[in-house]
Amino acid sequence: MTYCLAIKMNEGLVFAADSRIVAGIDNVTTHRKLYTFRPATDRFLVLLTSGNLGTTQELLDLVGRDLDGVGERPSLRTVNYMFEAARYIGQSLIGIEQGYDAAFRRSGINGGATLILGGQIAGRPPELYLIYPEGNYVAATDETPFLQLGEFKYGKPILTRVAVPALSLNDAARLALVSFDAAMKSNLAVGPPIELGIYPRDALQFSHRLTLDAEAPLLRQISADWHTAMLGAFQHLSRFEWEQ
Amino acid sequence: MTYCLAIKMNEGLVFAADSRIVAGIDNVTTHRKLYTFRPATDRFLVLLTSGNLGTTQELLDLVGRDLDGVGERPSLRTVNYMFEAARYIGQSLIGIEQGYDAAFRRSGINGGATLILGGQIAGRPPELYLIYPEGNYVAATDETPFLQLGEFKYGKPILTRVAVPALSLNDAARLALVSFDAAMKSNLAVGPPIELGIYPRDALQFSHRLTLDAEAPLLRQISADWHTAMLGAFQHLSRFEWEQ
Repeated sequence: MTYCLAIKMNEGLVFAADSRIVAGIDNVTTHRKLYTFRPATDRFLVLLTSGNLGTTQELLDLVGRDLDGVGERPSLRTVNYMFEAARYIGQSLIGIEQGYDAAFRRSGINGGATLILGGQIAGRPPELYLIYPEGNYVAATDETPFLQLGEFKYGKPILTRVAVPALSLNDAARLALVSFDAAMKSNLAVGPPIELGIYPRDALQFSHRLTLDAEAPLLRQISADWHTAMLGAFQHLSRFEWEQ
Repeated sequence: MTYCLAIKMNEGLVFAADSRIVAGIDNVTTHRKLYTFRPATDRFLVLLTSGNLGTTQELLDLVGRDLDGVGERPSLRTVNYMFEAARYIGQSLIGIEQGYDAAFRRSGINGGATLILGGQIAGRPPELYLIYPEGNYVAATDETPFLQLGEFKYGKPILTRVAVPALSLNDAARLALVSFDAAMKSNLAVGPPIELGIYPRDALQFSHRLTLDAEAPLLRQISADWHTAMLGAFQHLSRFEWEQ
């Protein structure tokens, strides 16, 4: 399983991904799930991946080949809007999935992948899209400024409470780490290292990119801070009437 | 969907259940999922239900008929251990499921149910069991003193942090409400009223039993307390090194 998260604020975008791939409990490996593209100086794109690892790796190969300009297909360089980038990724994705459809059906394997694409093309606002295995997409909005992939439930309650467009980039990055802490504490299929990327609006590059392994002092400190705060908060909840 | 939770402490047991039944998004109804049995003065049992509503209602009907003494089947009155009660419920459950198996297969309907059974038989300790659709069971332990049914993921992180056998009954009841608040904020399929039962060891009855609807001051207060505490805790997390 996987956990990926992206948050869209007025100040920019924050991306986070774990690195654990589980193909049965005796086959656990580590793979990156956060990829960046700067195919021209006017644009910066980030892709977070979940689902079938073969499908997502082949997708990255095809996206790279399209950027090399072989053939007449569009690419992340030729699109004019972020939504066109999302459509391009979605179409590439279903092309791969369809090619293996009969074989996957025979094996009973789910070959689908779900992706988050974010970034900015100069002159337009930053955008964030969730791309489904069917190739279609939905955008993050002011009302729901975050998108998640994979094991999303454990880390969702804190996002629902805290994630708003007015959040600063640093606060959103901290929020992402708290959300990952909840997911990692609850599910062994979500595991470090955590990749974290902070994208300030109009920067066309990450201002900070961190790879946090299980022993990273920052990850441990945020986890310990949050744990202590939770226990403290719990002690100060209202009492039942029969306790008064 | 459903969310049910039971916690086992040194002082006793706490049970909580939502009341929402979703059979498609246009068919949402309210049904109790927490049932108590005191078939003799030496025992008190609580059943929390999830899964196919037809299956769980028929189970309750059969459990009631067995208590009436019709036929020669065992019942919640005749068992000598709580684990025997769990086995009895599990066997009754698979008997029902098997009777509809062919019809459910034709319709593609999941007729299974998952249950939590807890309580105490005088002279033995309180126990808590999760009963699977296959009829087998697992017990709550000191290491994992809580059991959940249904939409369990949203409300699990706080349980993982706070639930220990040394928790007082009132603290465990508050913890249950916080866990339900997370689930209800994240998933419309979990909804009030929330039924809450507090069982002190050796009492052989609930000391408190509450039915909390969406407007219940206690539920709103706990939710507001927790929300404020989360936002406050978030403000006090460690900063990134580039912020210092």
